[in-house]
Amino acid sequence: MSTDTKQFGRIALVGIGLIASSLARIIRRGDLAEHVAVTARTQASLDTAAKLDLADSFTLDAAEAVDGADIVIIATPMGAYGTVIESIKGALKPGAIVSDVGSVKGSALADLAPHIPDGVHLVPAHPVAGTEHSGPESGFTELFEGRWCVLTPAAGTDQAAIDAIADLWAATGANIEIMDAEHHDLVMAITSHLPHLIAYTIVGTATDLEQTLRNEVIKYSASGFRDFTRIAASDPSMWRDVFLNNQDAVLEMLQRFTEDLTAMQRAIRRGEGDTLFDLFERTRTIRRGVIDAKQA
Amino acid sequence: MSTDTKQFGRIALVGIGLIASSLARIIRRGDLAEHVAVTARTQASLDTAAKLDLADSFTLDAAEAVDGADIVIIATPMGAYGTVIESIKGALKPGAIVSDVGSVKGSALADLAPHIPDGVHLVPAHPVAGTEHSGPESGFTELFEGRWCVLTPAAGTDQAAIDAIADLWAATGANIEIMDAEHHDLVMAITSHLPHLIAYTIVGTATDLEQTLRNEVIKYSASGFRDFTRIAASDPSMWRDVFLNNQDAVLEMLQRFTEDLTAMQRAIRRGEGDTLFDLFERTRTIRRGVIDAKQA
Repeated sequence: MSTDTKQFGRIALVGIGLIASSLARIIRRGDLAEHVAVTARTQASLDTAAKLDLADSFTLDAAEAVDGADIVIIATPMGAYGTVIESIKGALKPGAIVSDVGSVKGSALADLAPHIPDGVHLVPAHPVAGTEHSGPESGFTELFEGRWCVLTPAAGTDQAAIDAIADLWAATGANIEIMDAEHHDLVMAITSHLPHLIAYTIVGTATDLEQTLRNEVIKYSASGFRDFTRIAASDPSMWRDVFLNNQDAVLEMLQRFTEDLTAMQRAIRRGEGDTLFDLFERTRTIRRGVIDAKQA
Repeated sequence: MSTDTKQFGRIALVGIGLIASSLARIIRRGDLAEHVAVTARTQASLDTAAKLDLADSFTLDAAEAVDGADIVIIATPMGAYGTVIESIKGALKPGAIVSDVGSVKGSALADLAPHIPDGVHLVPAHPVAGTEHSGPESGFTELFEGRWCVLTPAAGTDQAAIDAIADLWAATGANIEIMDAEHHDLVMAITSHLPHLIAYTIVGTATDLEQTLRNEVIKYSASGFRDFTRIAASDPSMWRDVFLNNQDAVLEMLQRFTEDLTAMQRAIRRGEGDTLFDLFERTRTIRRGVIDAKQA
């Protein structure tokens, strides 16, 4: 056993899905923590995590997992935050840092901040990365490389605590950004939440087609549809919670999208080729931006 | 010079974009034709095609290109079909086969069939493959491998002509399907045209955001949005023509999609988590179908 000082002390992961299991693999690979404790809602998840050797200890008791932890990462669906913080708040040690990985930050602050004990720090985080796969077996160490991790600490948060969470995510290969929670939620509404909502919807529309046509949709999906099916295969619990927690920003962006779609529909119905061409031409600028930003 | 009999005689390609230039590369690689003639609307396209050695002869005069051709492939945007067939119909030799590669087949039949001379065969085709890139330099020989090519000949079309076009596309690695034109257009409305319309729309919605927010959308595009930007970078002329030519089927599918999106919006506004979860859960079935069909 090494007696070197590790970069991080004791880390507790609450939940062990795609994000937390990827983080756990990175921590284990780099031997970055004194101890990694994992807690999950089901024994099956813990068993899988243990089989994959993702942590030093495994327990169904969240309070036990966070006991003595320097850093606690809440990585459950956002709908469980209330239950989680209730169950761990009594076990958090003074100076501990609580963070999360949820896709909506306004509600993360609202759900967690009131329950954080004095002397414990809250630094919400959102690693902007993912795949359509979920569960502890789906994680991998490259998930965050070159992606962004957005931290949304409230004003006045302890700088050392912010730095510690920034260091943890920097160790995954992510780039760190600090942002206001409300602004984060608006940006994510258009870049992530609305695209997922639309993908779920169009795949749902196809699901409602008569059987023969539905089979043909699958057969010919390479013509555009398949990209939507991949996005729409994402974890339903996680996405339910995203839409419930980022309601206002999503509805605002959805309203704008619907107006634009109605304009498209009118141009098609009226046979306005020039209008359609202009609309299709201008979207290329953003694509070039995405490629230039190396996010393609 | 080889004196062996080639699989195909003289082939004329009218237009030399992504699809035709990929087909040309395949024909040249396999030495499948006696002669490949290319005609295009601009000298620049012809120059690029010549530099890439995509054909034996190059001409701005479409009639000259199809003179003596056994197979003529129209591969222009669909809006040009009327002009193209007018300019070549007098030069088509008896027994020639005219085909195309357009994404809408009802309008292809309607635009071309009335102008096809007696003794010339019309076999419309749609290779269901593509990328977001366009132009002669963007083609590649693997584009059609494992994808579908749908032929939509009218009832009573000469079987040998159908077989010849099927053989040509089979040589690209595509799987061949014969389908009624109207049914083809309905299937493509949901698998291809609606996804493209939605992608163009959401990227357009993002384009209208204020500058700062738009830059952040690009920065964080890996969270879902980037897949839409790729689809929305497709050729504007081609897609304008698709929507003008498949108006009815697209408007029908768009109507269904809009109804489903409204239901989503209502569930979000009312905070109906169970409804959202059920909608998100059932779309996974189609994704499994896409993966099982090896189209993922």
